[in-house]
Amino acid sequence: MTDEDDLLAKGREVQARLWPQVTSGDTGTFPAAKLAPDFYRYVATTAFGLIWSRPGLAIRDRSLATVAQLSALGRSDELRAHLRGALNVGLTQDELVEVLMQTAVYAGVPAANEALKVAAEVFGTGDQ
Amino acid sequence: MTDEDDLLAKGREVQARLWPQVTSGDTGTFPAAKLAPDFYRYVATTAFGLIWSRPGLAIRDRSLATVAQLSALGRSDELRAHLRGALNVGLTQDELVEVLMQTAVYAGVPAANEALKVAAEVFGTGDQ
Amino acid sequence: MTDEDDLLAKGREVQARLWPQVTSGDTGTFPAAKLAPDFYRYVATTAFGLIWSRPGLAIRDRSLATVAQLSALGRSDELRAHLRGALNVGLTQDELVEVLMQTAVYAGVPAANEALKVAAEVFGTGDQ
Amino acid sequence: MTDEDDLLAKGREVQARLWPQVTSGDTGTFPAAKLAPDFYRYVATTAFGLIWSRPGLAIRDRSLATVAQLSALGRSDELRAHLRGALNVGLTQDELVEVLMQTAVYAGVPAANEALKVAAEVFGTGDQ
Amino acid sequence: MTDEDDLLAKGREVQARLWPQVTSGDTGTFPAAKLAPDFYRYVATTAFGLIWSRPGLAIRDRSLATVAQLSALGRSDELRAHLRGALNVGLTQDELVEVLMQTAVYAGVPAANEALKVAAEVFGTGDQ
Amino acid sequence: MTDEDDLLAKGREVQARLWPQVTSGDTGTFPAAKLAPDFYRYVATTAFGLIWSRPGLAIRDRSLATVAQLSALGRSDELRAHLRGALNVGLTQDELVEVLMQTAVYAGVPAANEALKVAAEVFGTGDQ
Repeated sequence: MTDEDDLLAKGREVQARLWPQVTSGDTGTFPAAKLAPDFYRYVATTAFGLIWSRPGLAIRDRSLATVAQLSALGRSDELRAHLRGALNVGLTQDELVEVLMQTAVYAGVPAANEALKVAAEVFGTGDQ
Repeated sequence: MTDEDDLLAKGREVQARLWPQVTSGDTGTFPAAKLAPDFYRYVATTAFGLIWSRPGLAIRDRSLATVAQLSALGRSDELRAHLRGALNVGLTQDELVEVLMQTAVYAGVPAANEALKVAAEVFGTGDQ
Repeated sequence: MTDEDDLLAKGREVQARLWPQVTSGDTGTFPAAKLAPDFYRYVATTAFGLIWSRPGLAIRDRSLATVAQLSALGRSDELRAHLRGALNVGLTQDELVEVLMQTAVYAGVPAANEALKVAAEVFGTGDQ
Repeated sequence: MTDEDDLLAKGREVQARLWPQVTSGDTGTFPAAKLAPDFYRYVATTAFGLIWSRPGLAIRDRSLATVAQLSALGRSDELRAHLRGALNVGLTQDELVEVLMQTAVYAGVPAANEALKVAAEVFGTGDQ
Repeated sequence: MTDEDDLLAKGREVQARLWPQVTSGDTGTFPAAKLAPDFYRYVATTAFGLIWSRPGLAIRDRSLATVAQLSALGRSDELRAHLRGALNVGLTQDELVEVLMQTAVYAGVPAANEALKVAAEVFGTGDQ
Repeated sequence: MTDEDDLLAKGREVQARLWPQVTSGDTGTFPAAKLAPDFYRYVATTAFGLIWSRPGLAIRDRSLATVAQLSALGRSDELRAHLRGALNVGLTQDELVEVLMQTAVYAGVPAANEALKVAAEVFGTGDQ
């Protein structure tokens, strides 16, 4: 039996590994933190406390799967955050570029193009 | 037998309930109104004149369903307009936030995140 | 402070309102219940225990929003279950048909067509 | 000024060019025709009477664009019907296969694969 | 037997017909050209060298199909480039507007709305 | 300089690691192999010969990313094949179940549900 606050604490631990520079009071990273504070508690508790913290898959592999999904789905805001996180849990820029290129095969060239644009911004190698 | 102009008039009536502040001459709300004026006449006639004006579902419930779909599909421009409309046909900010949070369950956390960001802008409660 | 088992119990209560004929031991409704039993516990705890059980939106409205989203996203298996649930929490067949027809406006005619086919099966009014 | 019945008649004319073998009384082609007869009238009136019948684009080109969109969106039931229609308005099997192969570039290999499977069934050249 | 450089040359030829004003050294058009130069070589070689250059479908029809797909999928950056290309391979503004309006039928009104907004920018007929 | 046949051979090598039981003459695995033989050659040459065979990412990681994307996009036929392939390049059933559960976070519960149903069939642990 785990109470909800324990789950939240476990979730925040995972978030701190992905984004060590963000503190739990730093709501600037959540654009709707004032409107829907319960939502960010919900995400920390469930996505991170109940799923990401499960022992069956390494955090580096969870990060790889997440980057792959966000690029395929075209969720660029979320992808930006998770590319930053990926570098903090052991993935290299080169590996991430390979994942994003491969996105062209499964979700089409425009999805890969958009994801690589985001990566160029995050990695500081963009042309714009 | 209803002629096309009657349908257009019926559609404009529904649009006026959702967006009373927009007049039919206010093409600024349709970014391609000059390029494709027939398209905006088509939408008023069909989406609003033939579907939204049907008596089988309350306009408040149609608005709720629309907000739910636009957030799930990630159509943020259209969601912005329909969140404004929703407040004019009887939905509250709190109810709309609940719908957008629930989007995380059926369309994923990034879809809910994006929709809540739009809502924070519309409701004037954003951090940015 | 709520422990995880309380959340699960709250979630199961909501599920019982939507699908009274399904008992918690009836894994036949979850095609991967043997492979991933934790997943169904996760869904009951989070989607139903933490989201659907929130007081800010009537269960009938949550059901309406869910049907709207599943039809827009083309998730027919899940739509089938939620159309059954919708009838148990106060929505009528006529209201549900209106929601599915409106799907044509926001997600296109093929999405509405597919959703209405599922509804015809659930309501026993299909031609096939 | 065009009345709704004229639009319906114009729409049915376009449908008859695409699917000459289907009569307007042949509801078997609409799986939810009994549940939602208004929906099929709506589609004939709007999609076909107001859009497809516009003079600005050849019917063969409209058919090409439709096949391209349905394959990209993964709407296989609708694609099946429109591949049959495409052959009736001047597109060849070879041209259609080219469109479906090109889908791999813009929507990914799985979308093209699925669309080509549907085409093999329609053209009678499938292996299964 | 064609070697990879021949494919690249064939692809660049097709690209030059679509976008004559862009030279192969003009990496500004590829926002991630520095981060992933191999990706742009891959796209030129495969999408353009192996698919677009196939003889079975006219380049004007390939362009039409591409515009149709990009608008349905909501890929606005790529749509912008391909609307420009479409004008260079024989499609008219009026034909393109018809394709984008028809998108409302198969992918929903918001997809058409967004695509028409992009077209108004490209054609210089926008209100904003 | 690599000629196209070398790329095809490299692609077939990767395919043989993922699906050792399928021979290159076994067209039964490609439902449209007779209708569009060039397409399957194209996929082998490009997706596998040019992307999967790149050295920058382990084949096990490419497989993980692919499973993640196919489940998020709801491409169940392709997912079925790649779950089989994943077991052949070093991923375990338990790791794959974790990836599919995590899909609920980024693409929604219905996407995860559908993917887990496919996995239960592939792994022989389904209830149906």
